[in-house]
Amino acid sequence: MTARTIRVGILGNGNIGEALVDRIEAQRGDLAARTGIDLEIAKVAVRTMDELRSTHLAADVVTTDAMSICVDEGIDVVVELIGGVEPARTFVLAALGAHKPVVTANKALIAATGTELFDVAVSTGVDFLFEAAVGGGIPIIRPLRESLIGDRITRVLGIVNGTTNYVLTRMTEEGSQFGDVLAEAQRLGFAEANPAADIGGHDAAAKAAILATIAFGTTVVADQVYTEGIDDVDAELIDRATRLGYVIKLLAIVERVDDGADTQTAVRVHPTMVPLDHPLAAVRDSFNAVFVQGEAVDDLMFYGRGAGGGPTATAVLGDVIDAARNLVNGTHADVGRLVPAEIRPIGELTSAYYLDPEVVDRPGVLRAVAEVLARHDVSIRSLEQIDAGGGARLIFITHIAREADIQAVRRELADLDVVVDVGRLVRVIADA
Amino acid sequence: MTARTIRVGILGNGNIGEALVDRIEAQRGDLAARTGIDLEIAKVAVRTMDELRSTHLAADVVTTDAMSICVDEGIDVVVELIGGVEPARTFVLAALGAHKPVVTANKALIAATGTELFDVAVSTGVDFLFEAAVGGGIPIIRPLRESLIGDRITRVLGIVNGTTNYVLTRMTEEGSQFGDVLAEAQRLGFAEANPAADIGGHDAAAKAAILATIAFGTTVVADQVYTEGIDDVDAELIDRATRLGYVIKLLAIVERVDDGADTQTAVRVHPTMVPLDHPLAAVRDSFNAVFVQGEAVDDLMFYGRGAGGGPTATAVLGDVIDAARNLVNGTHADVGRLVPAEIRPIGELTSAYYLDPEVVDRPGVLRAVAEVLARHDVSIRSLEQIDAGGGARLIFITHIAREADIQAVRRELADLDVVVDVGRLVRVIADA
Repeated sequence: MTARTIRVGILGNGNIGEALVDRIEAQRGDLAARTGIDLEIAKVAVRTMDELRSTHLAADVVTTDAMSICVDEGIDVVVELIGGVEPARTFVLAALGAHKPVVTANKALIAATGTELFDVAVSTGVDFLFEAAVGGGIPIIRPLRESLIGDRITRVLGIVNGTTNYVLTRMTEEGSQFGDVLAEAQRLGFAEANPAADIGGHDAAAKAAILATIAFGTTVVADQVYTEGIDDVDAELIDRATRLGYVIKLLAIVERVDDGADTQTAVRVHPTMVPLDHPLAAVRDSFNAVFVQGEAVDDLMFYGRGAGGGPTATAVLGDVIDAARNLVNGTHADVGRLVPAEIRPIGELTSAYYLDPEVVDRPGVLRAVAEVLARHDVSIRSLEQIDAGGGARLIFITHIAREADIQAVRRELADLDVVVDVGRLVRVIADA
Repeated sequence: MTARTIRVGILGNGNIGEALVDRIEAQRGDLAARTGIDLEIAKVAVRTMDELRSTHLAADVVTTDAMSICVDEGIDVVVELIGGVEPARTFVLAALGAHKPVVTANKALIAATGTELFDVAVSTGVDFLFEAAVGGGIPIIRPLRESLIGDRITRVLGIVNGTTNYVLTRMTEEGSQFGDVLAEAQRLGFAEANPAADIGGHDAAAKAAILATIAFGTTVVADQVYTEGIDDVDAELIDRATRLGYVIKLLAIVERVDDGADTQTAVRVHPTMVPLDHPLAAVRDSFNAVFVQGEAVDDLMFYGRGAGGGPTATAVLGDVIDAARNLVNGTHADVGRLVPAEIRPIGELTSAYYLDPEVVDRPGVLRAVAEVLARHDVSIRSLEQIDAGGGARLIFITHIAREADIQAVRRELADLDVVVDVGRLVRVIADA
């Protein structure tokens, strides 16, 4: 078999870009023998002349003009590793417009403008692949798109941000405080200097939007994702969760909700209490995992490194080979028909809940609190009372309830004279 | 988009066959809308006239003549769900020979004659797909073949037999004895009436052969897999493993071993002590999981239902859609070039080991035992002495050692006067 040469143009020379170049150079011969595809790194776009001078790449391969790669007739496949929405979007549109398959690891780009890019890819008939955008090295987009296409996916629960999972794991296992662990994670390079997008849940929200789009065939953008970060999770809350048999994880949750004739998409990111015997509970440190539930396939989980040059470059390279094979075969992958999602409002979501109001410790108080819950159809699965300074703290886990009802309960509890502090609200995964 | 009709012929009408028919009927419209592929169940082959009479399928769809489906010009894709090597092999060869893509869930067939079938599929240029053959509903073959093609896989550890995992989980969590749990599993339908293939590790060995073939691009057949079952695992051994921080799992282990210029494939199935904080330790009951290590991607794990009609049918249906898309696009999947595996002899394998010889309790005994280990370059990671009737039992965990050296140690220990019983040998996963 004679290998067919495919010329790859790479936009961006950061961590992932360097790992990708290394992988291609290390595996080139082996890949050609196994797949018949000979990958040639034709061009790499760097951002600055300084970067250009520091690279070990040949001078005629490197350029600071990313757009020239997108429109170069000698380039077969374009890999976008710049990150962020612009100018990445402009380059991707130019490459797709020039009928070049595009591979990207850019979750922000897809979560913000995926619909537009999918449409252009479909209408120009070229591949637009993004396995690395969710879960880094974990194969999840391809299994959802291809392996599970015959099933009806009902729910996806994802630990899709390594920084927050690292912070929560260290807090849980060592009893450390949030600020200390975050500082340590920054020192070790696990957390960004500005960790707001991770800690605030926005990185996970972008991935939730992509997962919902692929799992349900409905286009969801990041702005439609209800998002809470882990800012308010402290050692005390983690300790209470542990004693109740839960571990706190920042989950991206996407659900298909059939409401009569309507099918809605529920999509949210927030700290969640996960039962200790749930497979997601064992996902520690900076590892990611995506737990998928389907009507026929039942429970699945995909686990691995959600970030890092090597893992992410592996996912990118899998897509590059796929695009190259499709070019050779004169075909292209198909995202399938996507329809706009009807987003279920957060108030209509249902979940089990953890509540821990602090109350004055005198007769009749529990009755007053229980009346508020009953009035809003919130039933109690477990209740524990613990001392709290002069008063008492009531630790409730509810049965499945409607979010709007829980929020009404909290407003009314806050108005009761006997309630000192309305306490926290944490959503709880009820089924192991 | 007008959907293209693809006519599917199904060989076998058991558990998986019925689930597949149900899935296709339930999803047909949705699949046509999403993928442009309209799947028509054209023919289903049953084994007997009794089966024929009991099915709810239309009379003109059912036949007892499986071969007629394989050569029917009106059939586009053949699904083989008969199981076993013959007559399945004959039917698959006939269908491939008639230039029809074949989808199968038949691990025994692939583990025994995969090389022949791959060759025929490549030379006739049609798809031969078998996602369901390993791990039931878990997408693992496609991720290995496609998503991870750019990485160099170094090791795969699989819990790939649900019956043995169920038995070991119940023994571990309830302290039950092997025979009692097995009887319960048979009563609940988790274990076959004749469980020898499961308990003896042979089912897992077939899957190990397939995993090695796909992960390393080298053809391995079931006969080449070193295989031990769980027959000798009892409550006492499980209890000792628990106290040492391990859980016992029946693992399929395939490794790439670079030995100078040579690359060998090590492939084996045996009970293994897995550290409690390893992701595989949390895989309970009848769930399966495949843990993959690659040079660049690091650790991955794929978890889900390894058996059952719904999960297995989902995997089969994903392959059917893939084959149908390829037919429509005039292309076919590519297993890549496979080379014959050079199998590393079991004596050359390396692992950490658990040993627990029973000795007489008197001065100098430990020194005599330790001398035997030292003579064979086996170094000790941990040692505990427990009472055993009148004597003592020495519980060793070794550092990484060569299997042949450990076997020599056991032979020499058996010959020592002070050794009452040479005890067990269990391989240990050393790294979490």
